[in-house]
Amino acid sequence: MKASVILAHPYGLSFNHAIYNTVVTTLNNIKIKTYAHDLYEDRFNPVLTEKELGKEPANDILVQTYSTELIESDFLVFIHPNWWGQPPAILKGYIDRVIRPPHTYDFPSNDSGGGLPIGKLQGKVGIVFNTSNTEEERENTYFNDPLEYIWKKCVFGFCGIDESYRKIFRVIADSTLEERKNWLNQIEELLTDIVKMRKK
Amino acid sequence: MKASVILAHPYGLSFNHAIYNTVVTTLNNIKIKTYAHDLYEDRFNPVLTEKELGKEPANDILVQTYSTELIESDFLVFIHPNWWGQPPAILKGYIDRVIRPPHTYDFPSNDSGGGLPIGKLQGKVGIVFNTSNTEEERENTYFNDPLEYIWKKCVFGFCGIDESYRKIFRVIADSTLEERKNWLNQIEELLTDIVKMRKK
Repeated sequence: MKASVILAHPYGLSFNHAIYNTVVTTLNNIKIKTYAHDLYEDRFNPVLTEKELGKEPANDILVQTYSTELIESDFLVFIHPNWWGQPPAILKGYIDRVIRPPHTYDFPSNDSGGGLPIGKLQGKVGIVFNTSNTEEERENTYFNDPLEYIWKKCVFGFCGIDESYRKIFRVIADSTLEERKNWLNQIEELLTDIVKMRKK
Repeated sequence: MKASVILAHPYGLSFNHAIYNTVVTTLNNIKIKTYAHDLYEDRFNPVLTEKELGKEPANDILVQTYSTELIESDFLVFIHPNWWGQPPAILKGYIDRVIRPPHTYDFPSNDSGGGLPIGKLQGKVGIVFNTSNTEEERENTYFNDPLEYIWKKCVFGFCGIDESYRKIFRVIADSTLEERKNWLNQIEELLTDIVKMRKK
């Protein structure tokens, strides 16, 4: 089995990077072939071009690589901070440019693009790790936590992925070293469990 | 009074461009000084840098210009398609890089960043025009329309903006010329009304 792991955070010593390292190490330890990308390190260009509005493949070599890896992968892992109820722009651009038709979803041939899409990523597992500086109650009652539906329905659901997990670590700005270590242990356990279930 | 108008769509003949032209013409006609930007035309770089994680001003001249205009403006107008329940990456990057502390929000001096922010854009009016290829019922029941909370609460509310409007035009892919003309008329009326109310 294979995994695609995508990280979006500009600061190399961020807790997001610690999550990324834990995810990659855990997957390696349980023998999952892992494609791992730090989008900032890759200097990924997140701006979808006019040409990419249709179904033509992108010219960008990074987009091509990420797309091939995504299609091959059984587990799609995304790691990012909650910025404005959304991923950082560099990851939003990964969604815009990599998760495109006809390989991740498509429309019936007689459809204008206004009908129901056909998801092409069925059977894959979506996994999201988020960091946040907002208390849980305020996130859920005031902001309505847009990332929950963005990942679960707008991205994974749209492409036919039914099984997904999302874990939020907060409040990062006020967290202790011990809490962070504990969170990384939770990630290791969760990933191991998800893979075990899938192997059955 | 002044307005800042921001457009995000890669195709120059898109309906989003028609909305943009209508918004700018309407505002000019009613004597609102208008700063208008097509982010694609400006070749805006949406990737927030490591340095911009804190409060230091950005080096990017476009970010500086957009920021100055945003602060000066009474009306903040955003025009974009609904892509994955979110704005296109280029506009997400405008939010990440332009709507930053200390000029749009800030934290009390003794706060780590984990507490409640102080909005600095009080009194401004937020206006969003979206295009969509999803039927209203599916948007609201399956996808939960993340853009509603993203703009109203996560962006405007976070920065202290209480008054905001959002209008969605759909289904674009199946719309007729007549529907589109009608939609542009609605935009002209709505904008004129919003400005009139504000002038009272």
